Amino acid sequence: MNFHDLRVNADRLHASIEEMAQIGVTNNGGVTRLALSEEDRRARDLLKQWMIDAGMSVKIDDFGNMTGRREGTAPLAPAMTGSHLDSVRRGGKWDGALGVLGPLEIVRLLNEHDIQTARPIEIVNFTSEEGSRFEPAMIASGAVAGVFSREFVHSRVDQNGVSFGDALQQIGYAGEAENRPLHAAAFIELHNEQNPLLDDADLPVGIVEGIRGITWWNVAVTGESDNGPTPMTHRRDALAAAAEIVVGVREIAQQTGDGATGLVGRLRNEPDLVNVIPSKVVFSVDFRHQELRVIDQMIGQLHELIDTVKERHGVEIEAEQLWLSEPTPFDSTVVQAVEDACQSSGIPAMRLWSGPGHDAKYMQAVCPSAMIFVRSHRGKSHSEDEFSAPDDVEASVNALLHSVLAIASQP
Amino acid sequence: MNFHDLRVNADRLHASIEEMAQIGVTNNGGVTRLALSEEDRRARDLLKQWMIDAGMSVKIDDFGNMTGRREGTAPLAPAMTGSHLDSVRRGGKWDGALGVLGPLEIVRLLNEHDIQTARPIEIVNFTSEEGSRFEPAMIASGAVAGVFSREFVHSRVDQNGVSFGDALQQIGYAGEAENRPLHAAAFIELHNEQNPLLDDADLPVGIVEGIRGITWWNVAVTGESDNGPTPMTHRRDALAAAAEIVVGVREIAQQTGDGATGLVGRLRNEPDLVNVIPSKVVFSVDFRHQELRVIDQMIGQLHELIDTVKERHGVEIEAEQLWLSEPTPFDSTVVQAVEDACQSSGIPAMRLWSGPGHDAKYMQAVCPSAMIFVRSHRGKSHSEDEFSAPDDVEASVNALLHSVLAIASQP
Repeated sequence: MNFHDLRVNADRLHASIEEMAQIGVTNNGGVTRLALSEEDRRARDLLKQWMIDAGMSVKIDDFGNMTGRREGTAPLAPAMTGSHLDSVRRGGKWDGALGVLGPLEIVRLLNEHDIQTARPIEIVNFTSEEGSRFEPAMIASGAVAGVFSREFVHSRVDQNGVSFGDALQQIGYAGEAENRPLHAAAFIELHNEQNPLLDDADLPVGIVEGIRGITWWNVAVTGESDNGPTPMTHRRDALAAAAEIVVGVREIAQQTGDGATGLVGRLRNEPDLVNVIPSKVVFSVDFRHQELRVIDQMIGQLHELIDTVKERHGVEIEAEQLWLSEPTPFDSTVVQAVEDACQSSGIPAMRLWSGPGHDAKYMQAVCPSAMIFVRSHRGKSHSEDEFSAPDDVEASVNALLHSVLAIASQP
Repeated sequence: MNFHDLRVNADRLHASIEEMAQIGVTNNGGVTRLALSEEDRRARDLLKQWMIDAGMSVKIDDFGNMTGRREGTAPLAPAMTGSHLDSVRRGGKWDGALGVLGPLEIVRLLNEHDIQTARPIEIVNFTSEEGSRFEPAMIASGAVAGVFSREFVHSRVDQNGVSFGDALQQIGYAGEAENRPLHAAAFIELHNEQNPLLDDADLPVGIVEGIRGITWWNVAVTGESDNGPTPMTHRRDALAAAAEIVVGVREIAQQTGDGATGLVGRLRNEPDLVNVIPSKVVFSVDFRHQELRVIDQMIGQLHELIDTVKERHGVEIEAEQLWLSEPTPFDSTVVQAVEDACQSSGIPAMRLWSGPGHDAKYMQAVCPSAMIFVRSHRGKSHSEDEFSAPDDVEASVNALLHSVLAIASQP
């Protein structure tokens, strides 16, 4: 049999996704499966059973990360793939689950065709990717990459004061540090896009070149409260000043182009009365781009704008960085392997960058990594409206199949 | 004696203002004397005693308005003046009180010099001008002018559920409808400016040509909530759209000039999260000008701007008028009488318009009216920082003296 003609069993793939989506199903057909919850335990139990049924061994590490392993024919580091089974509240059924169940279908297919690979194939279900119950997001892949300490991770608490460590014990998924998914030849994560770039381009599959960088800033404008009839020339209006910066943040991103984004999502106004001049406005700024240089350039433009607005309105403005997540370019060899797999299998695809973070962002620090995206309707995600068409899902898993086979076949 | 040389007794004037300011005095030298409170009762009792001591008769109407009367020599309608003794929480000592105690000093002065006027002179202390305890503001002068019914006024309740009518009974100032201050030849109100126009012009006294009109609008922008990394071209960002209108409101007022003001004082943003595109922003717009035509023109420009922003951002925008208070030009004859009084007495003064409303706004519907302003430092009012210099206060009462004498001398 020619490997290039190998295709996954779409019916079996969709059936597994639907069966998993019943765990934590919402009234509107979405999923609520918070990390380390009873629903998460049931999802893990099901995955574990499916892995064992597919002849895989299953290991659990000290963060609850599950690794299923299909042995290879040579004593080599595995080709690793995976994603997460936890979800946000009222999320979609593909987010995370596709990147775990797509690989499972690949193993089932290889078993069916009795195909042996040189390298082992490992499938990881990372714990608590979403950060909806325990913050921050991607905490367990970050811990594997050494970004977060074990103490930090285990001491995170949810809204009810339950710690990550206790929740992990409670659902019976606390394992050993030696089982961390650290020793792979490469890691490839399949995920739905969560952005409309593929939908716009009318393409089913994306070859992800990296995760864009993000910076969050907090801007505080202090003016002076005064009566409504105060003449225009005597005002130090914090909201009028802030509004110019809100408009400017959008313009800076638009003028930068090349996928740059700028957002003011949060804004608080004081004293917030119809006929009183606002004395204080505090707002957030979120800039994203694939190059740190460009993010720095947008922040520079923000500071220039702030200086102009300070002068024009006679207000005080303080801006401080809350967070910087530097851009993470993926490994060019692995990205190329994905592109080659799409081309040789005739799967229409394009290269793009991811806006949101994913476990692969941290895994890139552990081993050469890349991602595959499947088109998501209108880019909707973290929503019960999330939708990926069955044909697209099938194409994306076939792209993963041939990418993993390429890695797993390499000596 | 030449009337033109007549000047009030400044020491007696300031002493009365200081004595009144002790009723409800705050730690920082301001005044809290809410309408129909125990402090208001004590202020009324003191005023009543002072009026009686000055040989005046005192009448109370069914809204608690107090009218002190000094008889004239002819059977003519009185020259009326007055303002209010109630205050906002932590307000200043001149706001309202000056317009009651200035006239009292005038009567004392006339008594001292044994000057008789053709017309009677009446001093009114209007109830609940501020609206801090019972809304709306200027409720009792409005009731005298027929804008509010007696039932409406008496049924207003404060934060504790106490009605205006009950509070009036409780402090013993519920009088008869026949005592309403309805039958004057003219009404002149002296008040501190509450705006910095006189301070800017370095003039002690203002001749008020009218009360500017105000309109309040509510604007609701509906966009679409989405993830932070959504491409700029795919956003329907309610806050980015609203910010352009906030900037525009300021520009519309600035370009209109001629004292026009525009303010966005209140703004609420949803869902108000750092990395989520705002889906709904609701904000207020406050436009003011002395001509209704100009207010209408600014609203027209606001609507044009809304249409542009709707198109540019793909958002829905609804704008509705919450309130319109039309401009109230004062009576040109009375305004001229005030100007003549200032000129003949050598008091530096200029004509201007009032931003805030005053009891004289409603009294203009009852009889020909006007106002005199005294300079207030930096225009501060409704604040413990309110300050009018003693010399300015003296000059403003002398301006009132000669204005009232001019009216009271007319047959």
